Parts: sequence; C-alpha cells; structure tokens
Amino acid sequence: MKLQIALDDVTLEQALALLEQVKDDVDIVEVGTPFMMEYGMEPVRRIKERFPCLEVLCDTKIMDAGAYEARLAFEAGADYVTVLGVTDDRTIQEVAAEAARNSGKVMADMICVPDLPERIARLEELGVDVIAVHTGVDQQAAGRTPLDDLREMRAHVKHTAIAVAGGIRLETLDQYLLYRPEILIVGGGIAHAKDPARAAKELAERIHEAG
Amino acid sequence: MKLQIALDDVTLEQALALLEQVKDDVDIVEVGTPFMMEYGMEPVRRIKERFPCLEVLCDTKIMDAGAYEARLAFEAGADYVTVLGVTDDRTIQEVAAEAARNSGKVMADMICVPDLPERIARLEELGVDVIAVHTGVDQQAAGRTPLDDLREMRAHVKHTAIAVAGGIRLETLDQYLLYRPEILIVGGGIAHAKDPARAAKELAERIHEAG
Repeated sequence: MKLQIALDDVTLEQALALLEQVKDDVDIVEVGTPFMMEYGMEPVRRIKERFPCLEVLCDTKIMDAGAYEARLAFEAGADYVTVLGVTDDRTIQEVAAEAARNSGKVMADMICVPDLPERIARLEELGVDVIAVHTGVDQQAAGRTPLDDLREMRAHVKHTAIAVAGGIRLETLDQYLLYRPEILIVGGGIAHAKDPARAAKELAERIHEAG
Repeated sequence: MKLQIALDDVTLEQALALLEQVKDDVDIVEVGTPFMMEYGMEPVRRIKERFPCLEVLCDTKIMDAGAYEARLAFEAGADYVTVLGVTDDRTIQEVAAEAARNSGKVMADMICVPDLPERIARLEELGVDVIAVHTGVDQQAAGRTPLDDLREMRAHVKHTAIAVAGGIRLETLDQYLLYRPEILIVGGGIAHAKDPARAAKELAERIHEAG
C-alpha cells in the first residue's frame, strides 16, 4: 500500500515546506486540482526537481483532449495523471496511450459515475492503472463517505489497483484498511494536522504494518 | 450573439499577441483548460489587466470543490467559470452561489451528459447562466459534430443562454447560426487561421449581422 498526500489549498511555498517535513513517509505527492488551477504545471516541476524520489500525481481530471492534456502533465514531470471516469472511452484510451508513451500511469477518478460495476469493467478493459474511489468535498459536506463505494469497488475490480480519497485520517484509517486499497490518499489528515510530520509518520507506519 | 475565442494550445505570449490582433472583434476570451493547466491563473490575470474591456472565461471544468475552485478563478479576474454538467447538483449550486457573490457567471459544459433534456431542465432550476453544447476534440475526431446536440438544446432550453463550441469556422458558421446560440465559441477557426485578425473580423461581422 502507498500513501499519497493531496495538496489542494496551499501555496507553492507551503507545499514545498510541508513536503520537506513528510517526504520520508509519503510515496506519492498529489498536485491537487485547485493547486494546479492556481499555479499550472509549476508545482509538478518544482516538486519533482526537489524530491526526485517521490512520485508525483497531477490531478488533471481530464474530460476532453486526452492526449494533449496528459502529455502536458507528463512532460512537466508527472508520474500519474487523472482522467474522469465519466468521460468517453476514446478520451480514456488517448490518456492511456499517452501514459504508455511517457512511461506514466493513469488513475481514473470515479466521481459521479452512476453505475460503478459497469464502468469498472470497461475501465479495466481500457487499461487504466488505478481506479480511484472519490467522494467529492461537496458530497462529503452532505454526509457521504467513500466506504460504501470502496466496498463496491473491491467487490468488482479484478486486476487494477484501487485508490481511495475522502476523509482519511488516523482515526478513520482502519475502516479503509479493511478493503486493502493499493493507494490511500490523505489531504487534510496530514496538511491540516497539528503536527503534519507526525501524522504522516503514524499513517505510514499503520499502512505499512497492514501490508 | 457573442463571439468567444478559445485559447488552448498557446503560450501566454502567443495568446497576448493574438488577442492584440482580434481584440476589437471578440467579446469573450476563453482561457482553455490546457492553457490553464500549463499556466494556472496567470493568463486570466494578464488578459484581464491588458484587455479590461473583454470578458474572460476560465474553462475550469469544475467537477468537485465547487465554491473553492470557482472563487479561485473569480478572484483572478474571470467573468465566467465553467462547471461540468455531469457533476452533482450540490457542486453546481456551490459554483452558482460563488458566482453570485462575485458578480460572475456560470457556464455548464454538457460534455458526456447522457440525457440532455433532463439535465437541461435541472440546470435551469439550479440557475446556471449559460449551457454549453460541447463536442470534445476526441469525439470530433470520431466524426461527431455539435449540431445535433445544439438542435436538441434549442428545443429544450427555456430561458438560459446557449453556447456552442466544436469545429466552428467561417465555412461552417451558417449551420450554427440557424439555431441562434447566444455565444459562439471559436478556437482553431481563429487561432489557426492564416490571418487570425481577418478570420475574427469576418466571423464577428457575420454573427452581428445575424443578430
């Protein structure tokens, strides 16, 4: 299992300082969508340059222009891009092909996908590397948690890695570990912790103990 | 009718130089998704500063974190943000509320919406300002045009403005004008024309003649 830290509502300077504190405990650094919206590809370049041992995921949420947008992120140094599961198959195929050309990986974000089992089967055929359960912040505010989706994903995914995001912190970690996702994505649970370094260390220890 | 120029595959310098040529003929400048992905909010700020009389649309394609992402673009100076029609109602409500707080506008992008009439009715209730027909570049490559979608939109939209994008250029303009969209979005038809200034001028003349 890998620990992914999601950076959303931070400045570039805050992000670099935070990563300096947690770099030994996280595996993947996510340049979150709003972080990318504010700074473009600069965080991807700067993080990859300063922390070459960490993988970088750029949360591009590609919906259209698959090859072009994926290439842009891979060329900036991203190891992973994300594509929205709700988009058309052709866009997903283009993103997957572009990832293959750049030795990169594709994570499909299942936010707002109406029929999970059907879409999971198709995404596995299309060759994405990771399928991500994602309960959006708006849905979280309305009281939803990703655990039901995660359970359903685990029941239907045959060979693709699973990632899960949304509300994961030390106190809630065990519920997620039960379903053995390959990637656990933590945002506020590290970034907004009183002691981010300690939160990352404890999360990493418990994740690695669990396998 | 308004003419919107979409800037996607350009550098910031190319964009500013192009806008210098077409500024008298376009009404809205779109900072396209890949342009934003590369540069973040910098193009929104720079275009608004240099061309204060033009409206700026940031093609944020918001899927999640509605209020946060919309605010980010409005604070940078955008007049419009886009939200994906496929996202949940709560996200769209948040984007619309944030737009209202910033005297901004919301365009809903109908890319990959499966049931247009049903979603159009709901988006009108949720209070978006513009509903955009959008045939993605991947779908265009597969031979689809937005005209069928535009016809369906015109038949179902009651009071909201309609925008249309995808393959509009001088030679194809008349087919789009038939359905009287409030906003015509042109990308390559201007940016990749031999003479962009002339293409914008001719498009603007024909659009304004048509009303």
